[in-house]
Amino acid sequence: MTITTVARLAEHDGETVTIRGWLQNRRSKGKIAFLLIRDGSGTVQCVALKKNFDEEFFDKLTSLPYESAVIVTGPAKADERAPGGVEMQVDSLEIVSVSEEYPISNQEHGPDFLLSNRHLWLRSSKQVAIMRIRDEVIRAIRDFFHERDFINVDSPIFTPNACEGTSELFEVQYTEDELAYLSQSGQLYNEAAAMAYGKVYCFGPTFRAEKSKTRRHLREFWMCEPEMAYADLEDVMDLSEDFLCYIAQRVVAHRKHELEVLERDISKLESIRKPFPRLSYEEATEKMREHGHEFEFGNDFGAPDETFVSSLYDSPVMVHRYPHEIKAFYMKRDPQDDRFALGVDVLAPEGYGEIIGGGQREDDLETLRARIQAHELPEEAFEWYLDLRRYGSVPHGGFGLGLERTVAWMCGIEHIREAIPFPRMLYRIYP
Amino acid sequence: MTITTVARLAEHDGETVTIRGWLQNRRSKGKIAFLLIRDGSGTVQCVALKKNFDEEFFDKLTSLPYESAVIVTGPAKADERAPGGVEMQVDSLEIVSVSEEYPISNQEHGPDFLLSNRHLWLRSSKQVAIMRIRDEVIRAIRDFFHERDFINVDSPIFTPNACEGTSELFEVQYTEDELAYLSQSGQLYNEAAAMAYGKVYCFGPTFRAEKSKTRRHLREFWMCEPEMAYADLEDVMDLSEDFLCYIAQRVVAHRKHELEVLERDISKLESIRKPFPRLSYEEATEKMREHGHEFEFGNDFGAPDETFVSSLYDSPVMVHRYPHEIKAFYMKRDPQDDRFALGVDVLAPEGYGEIIGGGQREDDLETLRARIQAHELPEEAFEWYLDLRRYGSVPHGGFGLGLERTVAWMCGIEHIREAIPFPRMLYRIYP
Repeated sequence: MTITTVARLAEHDGETVTIRGWLQNRRSKGKIAFLLIRDGSGTVQCVALKKNFDEEFFDKLTSLPYESAVIVTGPAKADERAPGGVEMQVDSLEIVSVSEEYPISNQEHGPDFLLSNRHLWLRSSKQVAIMRIRDEVIRAIRDFFHERDFINVDSPIFTPNACEGTSELFEVQYTEDELAYLSQSGQLYNEAAAMAYGKVYCFGPTFRAEKSKTRRHLREFWMCEPEMAYADLEDVMDLSEDFLCYIAQRVVAHRKHELEVLERDISKLESIRKPFPRLSYEEATEKMREHGHEFEFGNDFGAPDETFVSSLYDSPVMVHRYPHEIKAFYMKRDPQDDRFALGVDVLAPEGYGEIIGGGQREDDLETLRARIQAHELPEEAFEWYLDLRRYGSVPHGGFGLGLERTVAWMCGIEHIREAIPFPRMLYRIYP
Repeated sequence: MTITTVARLAEHDGETVTIRGWLQNRRSKGKIAFLLIRDGSGTVQCVALKKNFDEEFFDKLTSLPYESAVIVTGPAKADERAPGGVEMQVDSLEIVSVSEEYPISNQEHGPDFLLSNRHLWLRSSKQVAIMRIRDEVIRAIRDFFHERDFINVDSPIFTPNACEGTSELFEVQYTEDELAYLSQSGQLYNEAAAMAYGKVYCFGPTFRAEKSKTRRHLREFWMCEPEMAYADLEDVMDLSEDFLCYIAQRVVAHRKHELEVLERDISKLESIRKPFPRLSYEEATEKMREHGHEFEFGNDFGAPDETFVSSLYDSPVMVHRYPHEIKAFYMKRDPQDDRFALGVDVLAPEGYGEIIGGGQREDDLETLRARIQAHELPEEAFEWYLDLRRYGSVPHGGFGLGLERTVAWMCGIEHIREAIPFPRMLYRIYP
């Protein structure tokens, strides 16, 4: 007997096959029972006729608890009216295990309850759709870089030094007399890798010990960071633009069904096309004033400012050349106007906020050393980083993309905690 | 002017192009200078004729320190004798930055010196080859699972409970009054994901606070872990076998040049073909006795035992059904003989040791609960894990593959510290 999956059922039209899954829903009408079976690849309606089973078994079937594990054998039948375009007749059914009463029902549950049952909540149709879109975004990210000759160079999680102050860092007792910090960004290591391999990216979990509890923050999230040697701010903006268009097009092309499950307005994703508007910080603050949005020049953008600026456009918008005081020590100053740093933030539309942050890095040894001193950072810890300016320094830059924010944006969901399988928040590390 | 990379030079035979890189080596013979330029994608010999430059510049060129950054423009010329099959004539050359005297030379350096200069050592030809093979292995892993309809479900790094005792766990102060541990394995979370999505894998960094300093251990390493619902030990072994063959074939097909740089005996990788020998623990211990290798029945295999067993075969060997006492609490017992657990270790040939560990998981609620109690683990922390047996339990299993051990094996290198960009060891977290 051919064992297959729901997703591949349509390839077996007319054949008798076996699928192995769980009972997601059922209803019965006298002599006929409709069983909705999910197997992780999709859901299919299976039709069981009473006459084909002994009465006791059929009764058991029509009262089987949700999430019971079942193996169903019968002919697959293409049917345009069926979800997924295919149905199954049940010739035989094996009950692998009878579930206890399943705690998640179709009624509304509060977020605390659902998060405490995340290990089960992951089975719900919307969560399945989100995780499939996450999987697609991850693959799109890797394909994008591979097609452009980037190589994946993983940055370490344990880092000996705090790159931008220790207040948001998780500390680990590495050995009896040595502390380590969990990485907030692989960028400094990426710079070393870019000098070795030209174009690189890292993609892994990063950690921020933030106290904030907003819908945009997680304490553990995945970040993808490309870095290019022989690149300037324009190259970084060009790459960001191509990158976001590529991801959105892949999701629309490969995950239409999942977007429909999430009732996502697909036209919003289709309108992510280049060129994206490019505003300098000065121009952006000018726009805010024109539109009566209060903002003090010199400040960093808060979430309301990001939302305001992005609300002016349908596509993502790039804001570049921020006051250097609000950007990291390693950012190169604008040679045209040294009040500003050659950084760029890409703001997603629909209020999803900053999705990418990046820029060109300082490549001059003495300037960088002075910057480290001015920021009162331990110079010794950055000797290796300074070496990159001693031995063959070149203009270079890159950016970081937050995976969960991107997934939340693609999915059109409000809170990024649903964009990661097991979210880690201020008061939540279980399950 | 077309800007290209060394790897793509052959596509531009006869055209005048620009490459941007670093001076790896040079020699000059009177009126001609040979510059070996690396750009991260490869290395190419560039030929500069004195008559084409003013004398002062040519002198500067022929004494330019290694690792200086240069942009070279000139015609690409296919040449069978040249490494990579192509050479460049230098029409013009821009010195982007002059390097200080580069600390890594062709002479022998000790491992401490090289590890302290890991940020520069990554540029050396052998390290470039290793990192390109690592990149290929990573992509092969993801392609393998994608082609088989697995979805990537990332497991969390912060975990509230210690899955197999806390002695080898790194501890983090998660909040003022809560500790977290860094994940040693995503398996338990994978099991939840497999019940939701059927076939899943996670692939990320994992952490072991081991005190050991062997050539096979890192404190931070990447692990890939697939998990399948409706699968037994045989399925796990079949998947392991296909997986390792796939990885080896991809590396041989796509990274021949890099394997040559490493002087890898490619025939060793070509002989990784299925079927792999499958020995039960009992059979393996019997073999040891036959061959006079001392081993006490009931013990776990140490490195010398692994090496001995694997030395009997050219391909990887699978050892299954270990005494349950030496395996984790969640492993299912063999219904044929409950002294043994349904686990499998795959031992790589050539002394590379255990490359995969996996098995079938206990799927019965009461048996698992009793096991947790017997191991004196905190039952409360495992309630969510027990839920997976309450709601639709099915036979399931999977394995973990250590990325760095796999890369070291593919590369034929002795120490896994070279198989990761920035190794983290007992006394080493810098750079």
